[in-house]
Amino acid sequence: MKRWIALILLTLILAVPLMAFAEDSVPTVTGNAEAISAVQKNADFLWTLVAAFMVFFMQAGFAMVEAGFTRAKNTVNIIMKNLMDMSLGAIAYWAIGFALMFGVSKTGWFGTTGFFLSDYAADKDPWTLAFWMFQVVFAATAATIVSGAMAERTKFVSYLMYSVVISALIYPVFGSWAWGSLYKGSGWLEGLGFIDFAGSTVVHSVGGWAALAGAIVIGPRIGKYVNGKAKAMPGHSITTGALGVFILWFGWYGFNAGSTTAANTDTALIAVNTTLAACAGAFGAMIISWIKFRKPDATMTLNGTLAGLVGITAGCANVLPGSAILIGLIAGVIVVLSVVFIDQTLKVDDPVGAVSVHGVCGAWGTLAAGLFNADGVTMKMIGVQLLGMGAAFLWVFPTAYILFRVIKSTIGLRASAEEEREGLDLGEHGLAAYPDFQAHTEPTGAGI
Amino acid sequence: MKRWIALILLTLILAVPLMAFAEDSVPTVTGNAEAISAVQKNADFLWTLVAAFMVFFMQAGFAMVEAGFTRAKNTVNIIMKNLMDMSLGAIAYWAIGFALMFGVSKTGWFGTTGFFLSDYAADKDPWTLAFWMFQVVFAATAATIVSGAMAERTKFVSYLMYSVVISALIYPVFGSWAWGSLYKGSGWLEGLGFIDFAGSTVVHSVGGWAALAGAIVIGPRIGKYVNGKAKAMPGHSITTGALGVFILWFGWYGFNAGSTTAANTDTALIAVNTTLAACAGAFGAMIISWIKFRKPDATMTLNGTLAGLVGITAGCANVLPGSAILIGLIAGVIVVLSVVFIDQTLKVDDPVGAVSVHGVCGAWGTLAAGLFNADGVTMKMIGVQLLGMGAAFLWVFPTAYILFRVIKSTIGLRASAEEEREGLDLGEHGLAAYPDFQAHTEPTGAGI
Amino acid sequence: MKRWIALILLTLILAVPLMAFAEDSVPTVTGNAEAISAVQKNADFLWTLVAAFMVFFMQAGFAMVEAGFTRAKNTVNIIMKNLMDMSLGAIAYWAIGFALMFGVSKTGWFGTTGFFLSDYAADKDPWTLAFWMFQVVFAATAATIVSGAMAERTKFVSYLMYSVVISALIYPVFGSWAWGSLYKGSGWLEGLGFIDFAGSTVVHSVGGWAALAGAIVIGPRIGKYVNGKAKAMPGHSITTGALGVFILWFGWYGFNAGSTTAANTDTALIAVNTTLAACAGAFGAMIISWIKFRKPDATMTLNGTLAGLVGITAGCANVLPGSAILIGLIAGVIVVLSVVFIDQTLKVDDPVGAVSVHGVCGAWGTLAAGLFNADGVTMKMIGVQLLGMGAAFLWVFPTAYILFRVIKSTIGLRASAEEEREGLDLGEHGLAAYPDFQAHTEPTGAGI
Repeated sequence: MKRWIALILLTLILAVPLMAFAEDSVPTVTGNAEAISAVQKNADFLWTLVAAFMVFFMQAGFAMVEAGFTRAKNTVNIIMKNLMDMSLGAIAYWAIGFALMFGVSKTGWFGTTGFFLSDYAADKDPWTLAFWMFQVVFAATAATIVSGAMAERTKFVSYLMYSVVISALIYPVFGSWAWGSLYKGSGWLEGLGFIDFAGSTVVHSVGGWAALAGAIVIGPRIGKYVNGKAKAMPGHSITTGALGVFILWFGWYGFNAGSTTAANTDTALIAVNTTLAACAGAFGAMIISWIKFRKPDATMTLNGTLAGLVGITAGCANVLPGSAILIGLIAGVIVVLSVVFIDQTLKVDDPVGAVSVHGVCGAWGTLAAGLFNADGVTMKMIGVQLLGMGAAFLWVFPTAYILFRVIKSTIGLRASAEEEREGLDLGEHGLAAYPDFQAHTEPTGAGI
Repeated sequence: MKRWIALILLTLILAVPLMAFAEDSVPTVTGNAEAISAVQKNADFLWTLVAAFMVFFMQAGFAMVEAGFTRAKNTVNIIMKNLMDMSLGAIAYWAIGFALMFGVSKTGWFGTTGFFLSDYAADKDPWTLAFWMFQVVFAATAATIVSGAMAERTKFVSYLMYSVVISALIYPVFGSWAWGSLYKGSGWLEGLGFIDFAGSTVVHSVGGWAALAGAIVIGPRIGKYVNGKAKAMPGHSITTGALGVFILWFGWYGFNAGSTTAANTDTALIAVNTTLAACAGAFGAMIISWIKFRKPDATMTLNGTLAGLVGITAGCANVLPGSAILIGLIAGVIVVLSVVFIDQTLKVDDPVGAVSVHGVCGAWGTLAAGLFNADGVTMKMIGVQLLGMGAAFLWVFPTAYILFRVIKSTIGLRASAEEEREGLDLGEHGLAAYPDFQAHTEPTGAGI
Repeated sequence: MKRWIALILLTLILAVPLMAFAEDSVPTVTGNAEAISAVQKNADFLWTLVAAFMVFFMQAGFAMVEAGFTRAKNTVNIIMKNLMDMSLGAIAYWAIGFALMFGVSKTGWFGTTGFFLSDYAADKDPWTLAFWMFQVVFAATAATIVSGAMAERTKFVSYLMYSVVISALIYPVFGSWAWGSLYKGSGWLEGLGFIDFAGSTVVHSVGGWAALAGAIVIGPRIGKYVNGKAKAMPGHSITTGALGVFILWFGWYGFNAGSTTAANTDTALIAVNTTLAACAGAFGAMIISWIKFRKPDATMTLNGTLAGLVGITAGCANVLPGSAILIGLIAGVIVVLSVVFIDQTLKVDDPVGAVSVHGVCGAWGTLAAGLFNADGVTMKMIGVQLLGMGAAFLWVFPTAYILFRVIKSTIGLRASAEEEREGLDLGEHGLAAYPDFQAHTEPTGAGI
C-alpha cells in the first residue's frame, strides 16, 4: 500500500512540470493551439482587408474607364458620379444594404437584422467589421456599373437617387439569395447549390441588368442614331480608359482571390485563373474585332480584358487554368458581338459597353462556372446556374426599370438637351475638366 | 529498493519519447510557442511593409492631385517637386530625421541616437528596417503637402531646400513629441495621453501649417487677386486630380490601418472608420458647395473626400463607425468653408487647398478623436488634444515661417514674374508637359 | 510480477489523457507544429500573391511611361502593345516559358517538364500555381521593356510575334540558368554562385538587350536624325509618364521584396534598399542633367528613379542601406550618360531610354550586387557576376537580333512611312487616342 502511495506521488511529481506549463506565460499545448488560431485569424483579417482595399481601388478604375471612354465635355460629371456612388452607396449599405444582404433571414429572400452595423455594436466582434469592409466595396462595384451605360445624359441628382436605391435595396436583396450564409443570412439560391464564387451574377450581372434598364428608359444620346444608323462617339482619352482597365485588373485580384475571406492556399488557383481569363479575353476580343473591323480595335480589346475578368469571376475557384483560358476567350468574343448587337440591332445606347461587359459576360461566366466545373458537371448543376442567371434578370431588370420610370416621371432622369449638347460638366457642375486645352468644335469630328 | 530503481528507470524510459521532442526537428511545446511568435512576427512584417508600400503610393496621389488642380504650364514643375520631396526627403530622413523622431530622448523633445540608420548597423534587427520603412513614407507625406500650397510660383531649388529641412527637422521633432515611444524615443506629449493614432496632427497639421507659412511668405500668384477680389484659377485636369484623390484614398488604408504596425484584428475597425469618414466627407462637401455655389462642385467634393480622411486619421482606432460618419461629414463642411475663408477673406493663395484639407481638418480630426472617444470623454482628454493641436501650430508655423524668410532673403523663394507667366515648366525645366496639344492663350480663360 | 503489471497499467492510464490529445480536435504538440507550418504557408502564399499582384500592376506603369514619353499620335498603339504583351505573353509562358525556365533540367541550360502547367495537373500542389503567378508577371515585365525602345514605328502584328518569342523562349532560357532551382530546375549560372536576387540581369538586362537589338534592326524614327544630329522628340504627357514611374516604383516593392516568395523578415531590408536606391537614382540623374543641360530635366530624373530601381534589383537582399544609396546614385548618373551616348553617339533611336534604364543599369546593378556584398567581396564573386552579365548579352542580343531580322525579311517589322507620319493609331487601329483635343500640326514642334 505504501508503495502504491509512493508510486502515485512519484507520478504526480513527474506531472508537475507538465502542469506548470498551464501557468501564466508558460506555453501549453492548448494555449499554443489557441495562439495558432489567433495568428491564422490575424492573417485572415490581413488578407480580407488588403483584398478589400484592392477592390476599393477598382472605383478609380471604373472612374477612369468611364471618363476615358466618354467625351471630354462630360468628364467632371462622370467622375462626380463615380465618386458619389461609392460615397453615398457605402453609407446606404451601412444603414440598410448590409442588413438586407447578410442579416438573419427567415424566408431566404432577405435579411432583417444588422441595420446600421448594429451587429458590431452588440458583439464587438471585429470580424463583423472586416467582413462588412469587404462587402461594401462589392456593393459599390455593382452600383458604379450603371453610371457608364447612362453616361453623358443623366441628371446628377437623379443619378444620386437611383445609386442609393441600388446599393441599399436592389443589389443586397439578390446578394442575400446567393451569399447570405457567408455571414448570418441564408438564401434560397445558395441552398440549391448555386455557384458564383466572387459574383459574375451577384455583382456584375446585377449591375449590368440595372444598366440595361437605365439605358432603355433614358434613351440614346443626342446624335447617337442618325436615320436609324448608330454613329460612333469615341471616348476622349484611350490612355485614361486603358489606365482604368489596368487598375480594374489589379483590383480584380482582390475581388476574386479575396472572396476566400481567409488566408489560405486556395487563393493561388483563383489568381492564376483570373490572370489567364483576362489575358484570353483581351486576345479573343482583339481577334474578333480584327476580323470584323479589319483592324485590332483598342476599345474592344480593353473591354475584352474586362469581359474575361467578369467571365471568370463566378468560377475562379472551381475550374482549372486551361478552362479559365477558354472561359476568358469566349467572353472576349461574346463582348464584341454583344456590344455590336446592343448598339446596332437593339439600338440601346450604352456609351462604355457596360451591359455587354458586366451583364452579358456575367451571365456567361455564371454558366461557365457550371460547365467547366473541375469535379465534373451535372444537368442539375447547369439547371441551378441557369435558374440563378434568370432570377438575377427577373429581379433586377423590372425593379430597376420601375425605379428609373418613377424618377423619370417625378424629378426627371435626363439633363436638358441644351445641357447635353454643351456638356454636363458646365451645366451640372459649372466646371470644365480641361480648361487649358483647345477642344474641337462640334462639326470637326467626334466633337466635344 | 530495487523496485524503486525499477520505478525510476521505467518513468525515465517513458519520459524519453517526450524528451526526444526537444531534439532537433522534433516539436516541443516551448519550441511551438516560439514558432508561433515567429509566424506572427512574419505577419507583422508583412502587414507593416504592405501598408508602407500603400502609403508610398500616396506620393503618386499627391502628384496627381497637385498637377491636376493647377495649370498645364506648371505641370512638369509640380511633378518634379513631388518626386524630389520623396527622393531627397527619404535620404534626409535616413540621415537625420528618423534619429530626431525615434532615437533615445533624454528630454522628451527630440531623439539623439540612430543617425544614418545606425541602430540597424548595430543590432541587425530587421524590425528597425520595417519600422523605418513605414515611417519614411509618413515623413514624405508631411513634406509633400507644402508643394501644393506654394504651387505655380516657387523656385525649384528653393523648394528642394525647404523640403529637406521639413523632412529632416520640422516634422521629426514634432513627431518625437507624440510618437517617439513607438520605437526608442519618449515624447512629452504622448506622456500626457495625446491621441493621434495615425497623424491628423503629426503628419497633416504639421504639413498644413508649414504650407500656410509658405503660402503667406511667397504671396499669391500673379493675377490671383485683382482689385482685392479673388479670381478662380481652375486646374488643368479634373481627371488627373480625381485619380489622385482615389489613389490617396487607397493609400490611406495603409496609412491608418497600417499604423497598428502589427497584423491584428484592430485593423478592421480602422478600415471601416476610414471608409465611412471619406464617404461622409465627400457628401458633406458636395452638399455645402451645392448650397453655397448652386452647383455640386467637383473640386470641393474631391477635397471633401480628403478632408474626411484627414479628419478620421487621429481617431480611426478609438471611435465607433457612426462617429466616423459624423467626423467625416463635419470635415467635409469645414473644408469648403475654410477654403473660401482662406482664399477670399485671408487672401492667402493656396492653389490646391492644402492648408484647409491638411492643416484645418487635421486639427478638427485631432479634437474629434477626443470628443468621440468610444470609451467616453473627459475634460482632461480634450485639454490634451487642444494642447497637442496648439503645440503643433506653435512649433511648425514659426519655424517654417523663419525658414521661408531666410530662403527668400538669400537664394530667393519665388520664380521670376516672366517665368511665372510663361509657366515654370519651360523656365525651370526647359520642357512642356503636353507639347502635342494646343493650349488656350492667356486671354481666353484660365490660360496656360 | 503483479506489481510490474500494476505499474505498467498505471503508467498506461496516466498516458491515456496525453494520447487523447492525438484524437480529433484535441490539440497535440505534433499537431500544433503542423498547424504552425500551415499558417506560415498561408502567410507565404499571401505575400507571394500580393507581391505578384503588385508586379502585375507594373504593366500599368510601363504602359503609362511608354505612352507618356512618346507622341500622342502613337498612344493607342503603345497601349495596345503593352496590353497584348501581357496577354499573349502570359499564355505563352503558361504553355512553354515556365517549363523551359523552371522544369526539370538535365543539362542546366533549360527545363523540359511542366508545359501547360502540367505539374499542377499532376500533383495539385497549390504552390505550383502561386509560384507560377509570381513568375508570369516577371516574364511579362521582360517582354514589355522592348516595346518602349521600338515605339512609334513598329508594325503591330510583328510586335505580337516577337513578344511571344521573348516570353516563351528568350527570357525563360536565360532565367533557367540563374533561377531554375527556385522550383524544379537547375541552372549552370546559379551553380557558380551568381547573385541576382530579383532580376537586374534576369529580367531587366534581358529585356534591355532585346530592346537594343530591336532598336538597331528597325532603325530610327522618321525625322529623328537630321544631318547626323539627333533631334529631341518629346513625349506627349509628362503627367502620364510620371504616373507610370510612380506605379512602377510601387510595383517594384512587390518585385524585389516579393522575390523572397515567403513571408519572412528579410523583406524589410529589401524594401528599405529599394526605397533608398530609387531616391538616390532620381537625385543622381537630376544633378547630372542639371549640370549637363543647365536645367533639372524631368524625363531624365524620372528615368533616374527607374535606373535606381533596376540597379538595386540584383543586390537588394545582400547589400546594406548605405550601399543601396550609392548603387542608386551611380545608376542615376549612368542612365543619363547612357541615354545621351546611345542617342547621340551610337545614333540608336530608343524613344523612352529603355536600353539605358534596363539593359545598362541592369548590368551595373548585377556588378554592384557583388561589389557591395555586405559579407565582403571576392575576385571570384566579381568574376561570376561579370560572367552572368556577359552570358545575358551573348544569349539575348544575338537571338533577338536574328528574331527581328527574320521578322523584318518575312512579314516586315516596320510600319509604312505614311502610317508613321500620320501616327500608328489611325493606321494600325483606326482610332485616335484624344479625338476631342486639338493637336499641333507637324511643323509647329514635336507635332502629332
